[in-house]
Amino acid sequence: MTGNQTRRQRWQHIIFGTDTPEGRLFDALLIITIIASVLAVMIDSVERIHNRYGHWLYMAEWFFTLLFTAEYAVRLWVSDRPLRYARSFFGIVDLVSILPTYLSLLVPGANYLLTIRALRVLRVFRVLKLVSFMREANMLAAALIEARRKVAIFMFTVLVLITVFGSLMYVIEGPASGFTSIPVSVYWAIVTVTTVGYGDISPHTPLGQSIASLAMITGYAIIAVPTGIVTAEITSAIHRDRDRFRRECPQCHLHTHEADAHYCRRCGTHLPAVESEPPSPDAS
Amino acid sequence: MTGNQTRRQRWQHIIFGTDTPEGRLFDALLIITIIASVLAVMIDSVERIHNRYGHWLYMAEWFFTLLFTAEYAVRLWVSDRPLRYARSFFGIVDLVSILPTYLSLLVPGANYLLTIRALRVLRVFRVLKLVSFMREANMLAAALIEARRKVAIFMFTVLVLITVFGSLMYVIEGPASGFTSIPVSVYWAIVTVTTVGYGDISPHTPLGQSIASLAMITGYAIIAVPTGIVTAEITSAIHRDRDRFRRECPQCHLHTHEADAHYCRRCGTHLPAVESEPPSPDAS
Amino acid sequence: MTGNQTRRQRWQHIIFGTDTPEGRLFDALLIITIIASVLAVMIDSVERIHNRYGHWLYMAEWFFTLLFTAEYAVRLWVSDRPLRYARSFFGIVDLVSILPTYLSLLVPGANYLLTIRALRVLRVFRVLKLVSFMREANMLAAALIEARRKVAIFMFTVLVLITVFGSLMYVIEGPASGFTSIPVSVYWAIVTVTTVGYGDISPHTPLGQSIASLAMITGYAIIAVPTGIVTAEITSAIHRDRDRFRRECPQCHLHTHEADAHYCRRCGTHLPAVESEPPSPDAS
Amino acid sequence: MTGNQTRRQRWQHIIFGTDTPEGRLFDALLIITIIASVLAVMIDSVERIHNRYGHWLYMAEWFFTLLFTAEYAVRLWVSDRPLRYARSFFGIVDLVSILPTYLSLLVPGANYLLTIRALRVLRVFRVLKLVSFMREANMLAAALIEARRKVAIFMFTVLVLITVFGSLMYVIEGPASGFTSIPVSVYWAIVTVTTVGYGDISPHTPLGQSIASLAMITGYAIIAVPTGIVTAEITSAIHRDRDRFRRECPQCHLHTHEADAHYCRRCGTHLPAVESEPPSPDAS
Repeated sequence: MTGNQTRRQRWQHIIFGTDTPEGRLFDALLIITIIASVLAVMIDSVERIHNRYGHWLYMAEWFFTLLFTAEYAVRLWVSDRPLRYARSFFGIVDLVSILPTYLSLLVPGANYLLTIRALRVLRVFRVLKLVSFMREANMLAAALIEARRKVAIFMFTVLVLITVFGSLMYVIEGPASGFTSIPVSVYWAIVTVTTVGYGDISPHTPLGQSIASLAMITGYAIIAVPTGIVTAEITSAIHRDRDRFRRECPQCHLHTHEADAHYCRRCGTHLPAVESEPPSPDAS
Repeated sequence: MTGNQTRRQRWQHIIFGTDTPEGRLFDALLIITIIASVLAVMIDSVERIHNRYGHWLYMAEWFFTLLFTAEYAVRLWVSDRPLRYARSFFGIVDLVSILPTYLSLLVPGANYLLTIRALRVLRVFRVLKLVSFMREANMLAAALIEARRKVAIFMFTVLVLITVFGSLMYVIEGPASGFTSIPVSVYWAIVTVTTVGYGDISPHTPLGQSIASLAMITGYAIIAVPTGIVTAEITSAIHRDRDRFRRECPQCHLHTHEADAHYCRRCGTHLPAVESEPPSPDAS
Repeated sequence: MTGNQTRRQRWQHIIFGTDTPEGRLFDALLIITIIASVLAVMIDSVERIHNRYGHWLYMAEWFFTLLFTAEYAVRLWVSDRPLRYARSFFGIVDLVSILPTYLSLLVPGANYLLTIRALRVLRVFRVLKLVSFMREANMLAAALIEARRKVAIFMFTVLVLITVFGSLMYVIEGPASGFTSIPVSVYWAIVTVTTVGYGDISPHTPLGQSIASLAMITGYAIIAVPTGIVTAEITSAIHRDRDRFRRECPQCHLHTHEADAHYCRRCGTHLPAVESEPPSPDAS
Repeated sequence: MTGNQTRRQRWQHIIFGTDTPEGRLFDALLIITIIASVLAVMIDSVERIHNRYGHWLYMAEWFFTLLFTAEYAVRLWVSDRPLRYARSFFGIVDLVSILPTYLSLLVPGANYLLTIRALRVLRVFRVLKLVSFMREANMLAAALIEARRKVAIFMFTVLVLITVFGSLMYVIEGPASGFTSIPVSVYWAIVTVTTVGYGDISPHTPLGQSIASLAMITGYAIIAVPTGIVTAEITSAIHRDRDRFRRECPQCHLHTHEADAHYCRRCGTHLPAVESEPPSPDAS
């Protein structure tokens, strides 16, 4: 923030940073623009609105696309490592968010994919980084990463079961009940085991209904497993997070003090200070 | 409760208080009246009943509305700070609970909104305040408030995913399968990810069914996250609540005694008394 | 078990007891008979089977009913306190399990209610009392009783929400979409909030679909609350149950020994015996 | 791995072992072949593909079946205890995975059951045995085995409730609404209580809708119970697993160190080594 910054560095701070008023203003404006552009695409798909305001919405689409194209170019320019940005999650999302408009010149209808821009809104978490939201999001992420492998084992087993259930139903029910092929039957099995149950395909023979019942009970019961895994990991993560701020009262040994407590809530003794952690300087 | 109370103060005790027999009687009568008025509106909407008893139910509706209007006026009169009551949750619900009848003079059918009165029944928790229900409700509320931010982060991410899923399906399936616009496709995505699955709109192309399967498995798996968050917070809240009443047996050091225990359940030694907390004097 | 028992006392032991070979044989036969009688009623309702074997199944129905009537009479006779048995849960189920056949002489079709006999099968848990199933069932029951009040508060709030959602949809969608009355709309709200989603009634207007989306997300999210409550209570119950059998190794202080361990699994030191609890003598 | 192994022993190591490069290569090739053969069966069931490539897919089917038959024979030959392998879970799956092709010579269509081969893919967990996936899978399995009895008690109670709900609906709604027999009504009850909700059968009378609402709320609420049980057991299992690697810092007494930590993350003191457990030598 010294005076001898180049213009590029200043823009870098505004666009990638969230620690200056300008940076936060930029992010806030960006998010509002993203939401406006997504809404424009969404309502343009409603026929009645398209017939009346299609012309204006078409112009708005090109306006937003050119704006985001310019933003993407500036991001590449100000970034210290443009390639690294271009290959990051948000770099790819930023690019994919402008392509459909250009693509729609060749393939009509492609512009409706513009709503993928909605993913850009996830940047909002970066804006919130400075407040305590970030600590909670990190904790959640840590718990889900910890649970990842256990959930993967579980999901893999479920997919194998779904394949077997689907094939069985194809052999038992056949095309008459809508089970026209094994892939369709597997689709039915997914609809059933996840308890969505559209009812567009449903068994009609007694044996088919029995197998379907088994699939439903399986789906209903096994949801307990990923829930259990994730719950156990989140409980651990919360405890770890609280342990970090745990202080014992030197007088009465009560140790469940809130993070912002200065005095023991039972006996009033002054509590030792929390060792503060230096915030990581370049996390984005 | 001294003799020199004014009439206003006495009514205040009866209407807002729950610590006198009159106050409890008032609340009980109020809740019964609310339930009766809600039931009257509900059955009046059934055509067969409306044709036969519509006249009587119309009179009942006006009777209840005038009664509740009078109650609202008295509440404003006896309240020490009428504006504060008028802007509180129950103040607004009380007002909204009488407006539809008057509104129905201008807009026919508006009176069916009277069932919003059902919300007034939530006052029942105030009546139960004196018993231990309140401690449990407070504990639950504390846990949910603690979980609020983490659940918000999660729900926001889910909404972005739903928007992307919905738009994809609009491009892939199109109006032929019922995906007539992006807003309708987003509605379909909500129906699918929440595993409700009406089946009024459902994919018919292989690619659409694949994306839909992905949406279903996502919805089925991610329910584990809010459940995990809320469970972890409720577990914490229950532990905090029990810690408060935790006492150690001075003889055998068993410390898992129930709140109402006087003697150690293992060795019979007399337990130390629980430090009681003074009830907060003006919580409503 | 002394020699001077009367015949009544011997039958009492066989019918109500589960601690003699005869008692266990009686219970096993009873459960097989119950299942057979329920299956007979179920398959009799299938038209094709009824047309062919209706006569035999009718005879079987009367055979089972007379058998269970005799059993009910014997139970009343051998019971020390017949009235107490007659008013207990199983006493009422036993009576209700024989009435429909007699009732079907007056009201045709009433006999299909015989499947209520299925409830008698729950007696199987009594048979299993002697093995460790009972300890687990008791632990579960204790946890659910503990969670009862918190779940009740929650369910009450959900029911009020469902009423409000249902009425809103009646006003917004009206009979054209199938919302023919407020009770029907409330039924729709229950179908939606519980994520069952039959699709027999579904919203068609944009505003209706928005409110419905809100109802679905509410239903999808709030399931986390009762799950959290029950999980927290079961976790507590399991810990309490394990605490009871917790022993510390006098050598290495490892304290997570299984209930049936005699030696420390880390250092092999002989563990102190668990204080056994005298089984409650007359629990049924 | 000494030089004087017979050829049989060498093959045994390759086929059943996962600790040599050859063994791992064999397993990897096997899993790829299984997936290819399952996909071939699946797409052959799509009519359009069958008409065009049916001949090639038929040949592929016989190729894979003969390959797997040869593999099965070799497995029997190299196994030390062929009968034990033949009766193990994977032995049965291996046999059932080749039978449908031969069976299809007698019963056309039986070959679609070949997708049961998908179960063979579960062998992938064996391949992953060497990495940490196995520890997680074991932990999950231990938790589910621990929860087994409690979940069984619960599922049994739910099945009894479903039978009673189904019969009630048969008597109340009757064939006019699709409740054509008690078995069909029980199927409906399963569809409803598991919140799948196809909507192929749904109640139309007010009383039927009330009972159905009760069934839905029951299903919605009781899912909390198995989830709670499994969560509690997984939490216990994770804690047990972490306890095993728990070490206390001799300096500052922080004890929440990760399994791979060598130094205290707070004060940097060198941590004592974890007592390693000898891996069980012949687990498969």
